[in-house]
Amino acid sequence: MSADLRVGLDIGATKMLGAVVTADGAVLAQTREATVPGAAGVLATATRVLDRLAAEFDGVLPSHVGIGFPGLVDRDRGAVSHAVNLGLGDDWLPLAERLAERTGAAVMVENDVRAATWGAHVLSGADDLGYLSIGTGLAAGFVLGGVLRRGASGASGEIGHVPVDPQGRVCSCGQRGCLELSAAASALTAAWPADGEISPAAALFAAASAGDAEATAIRDGFCARVADAIRMLGLAVDPATIFLGGGITDLGQPLLAAVTAAVREQAVTSPFLAAINLAARVRLLPAGVPAAAIGAAMIWDAR
Amino acid sequence: MSADLRVGLDIGATKMLGAVVTADGAVLAQTREATVPGAAGVLATATRVLDRLAAEFDGVLPSHVGIGFPGLVDRDRGAVSHAVNLGLGDDWLPLAERLAERTGAAVMVENDVRAATWGAHVLSGADDLGYLSIGTGLAAGFVLGGVLRRGASGASGEIGHVPVDPQGRVCSCGQRGCLELSAAASALTAAWPADGEISPAAALFAAASAGDAEATAIRDGFCARVADAIRMLGLAVDPATIFLGGGITDLGQPLLAAVTAAVREQAVTSPFLAAINLAARVRLLPAGVPAAAIGAAMIWDAR
Repeated sequence: MSADLRVGLDIGATKMLGAVVTADGAVLAQTREATVPGAAGVLATATRVLDRLAAEFDGVLPSHVGIGFPGLVDRDRGAVSHAVNLGLGDDWLPLAERLAERTGAAVMVENDVRAATWGAHVLSGADDLGYLSIGTGLAAGFVLGGVLRRGASGASGEIGHVPVDPQGRVCSCGQRGCLELSAAASALTAAWPADGEISPAAALFAAASAGDAEATAIRDGFCARVADAIRMLGLAVDPATIFLGGGITDLGQPLLAAVTAAVREQAVTSPFLAAINLAARVRLLPAGVPAAAIGAAMIWDAR
Repeated sequence: MSADLRVGLDIGATKMLGAVVTADGAVLAQTREATVPGAAGVLATATRVLDRLAAEFDGVLPSHVGIGFPGLVDRDRGAVSHAVNLGLGDDWLPLAERLAERTGAAVMVENDVRAATWGAHVLSGADDLGYLSIGTGLAAGFVLGGVLRRGASGASGEIGHVPVDPQGRVCSCGQRGCLELSAAASALTAAWPADGEISPAAALFAAASAGDAEATAIRDGFCARVADAIRMLGLAVDPATIFLGGGITDLGQPLLAAVTAAVREQAVTSPFLAAINLAARVRLLPAGVPAAAIGAAMIWDAR
């Protein structure tokens, strides 16, 4: 097996996706498993994904594994904690060490949004980008001058917890009116419950396309809040390109069209905003590509 | 004269401050002039400042001049425009070229907030910092990994124009509820007119210290909005150190104390904010040091 192969593991609350990736980001193999919650469950699920990938390479896993984890990450210790959706609390789980023992590979753990941000860099080749992760929560990552921004306290990109409405609801973080209360995918899901056949977001966008006035209003309101997040990234960091990420981007072009329309709408009354033309910088990553797992695999190269 | 000397020119709406600076940021000479508005006035004032500095070095100006300019800057052409407070409109003034003709020096122009940000880097030695400029407007700059962040469209750090209140007033930029409407020094000045003996900010802080309830409420309300700006910098970019800048920092420790108290207050209800401890990262630059002119002088070295 080529020494240049890397394994990326994207750990999510409902599923884990593992991929074997070449040095230039091509996916040679991938597999997914439903995530079993709790420390033992997370370890068992991750081990199963890695074993299944190894099986595709004569039982030998590539020597380096990178993990994107949705919670607090201590990169130096390879330990994780505070992932409510995974059933992990205050205790630190030495994830890298445990998986290294079980697989013989070197294991590195990174925050999931930053791993996906690095994936956007690998896939696009862009050296100056923001990545906006629209999921249960809302957070961003940056690659600036080819360097992955981690920040002094690991809080870089936590724009979901910037308050933008003094009259807003209290957020789980303890503040009031946080951006993520209206711009995360969960806000949309709550506003348009679905029957389970397709995702709430897909159902909403389909109803809006079919002319449903309520669906259109909810879609446009949500996209206006995503545009707020894009504006915040643009005015704070001013990246050359801003990628949208998260499961909601499975919607594809209709999402991109609605979001860029909302970004343009904000600039109608503001020559200042119009001049920096954020709408022209918003992009989707290629459909069906596991950007987060690819970024996790390549995180060993991240500066 | 040593080839390592540089000239920095900090152009403001009311005055221009010029300084001759050594390679390690020490000021050998400085002078200031009241700014005459309009293109001809700006050129004449700048020329007079540079001539007076040259006079202190046997009539020979150091070979490199850096300028911090409060408006739109086209760095490649060394041209400036859109500086309402200087009486400059849409037309581009080739400031670098004109001053090079008049002085024989090489001239580089940079946005004033970014020049001051670089000055904070030179003076502190910090390689990872945010600089919050609290003046007529509100804007920030960043040095990240030793690199001055300029951004894809020059908008990096324009956090004053992030809307934070849907019920807020309309801003001059055309948006509603921009952060700068309540967190810029002009908001404080408007709330506490002074008699001209001392600055409105100094009068307000003195009255608050003396126990005036209204002054205390205005001071604390203003500092809470500055804390909002610090939180936005922290959650977007997460710099290791955040310097406060602008004329209001002449207030010194009482300002720093009031602002850090406000930052701490925001974290009382939020363990998330408390964990990243922004209050411990807020700093003032040394008093009486012309950081913006020093940064302008050293802008030739900025990456």
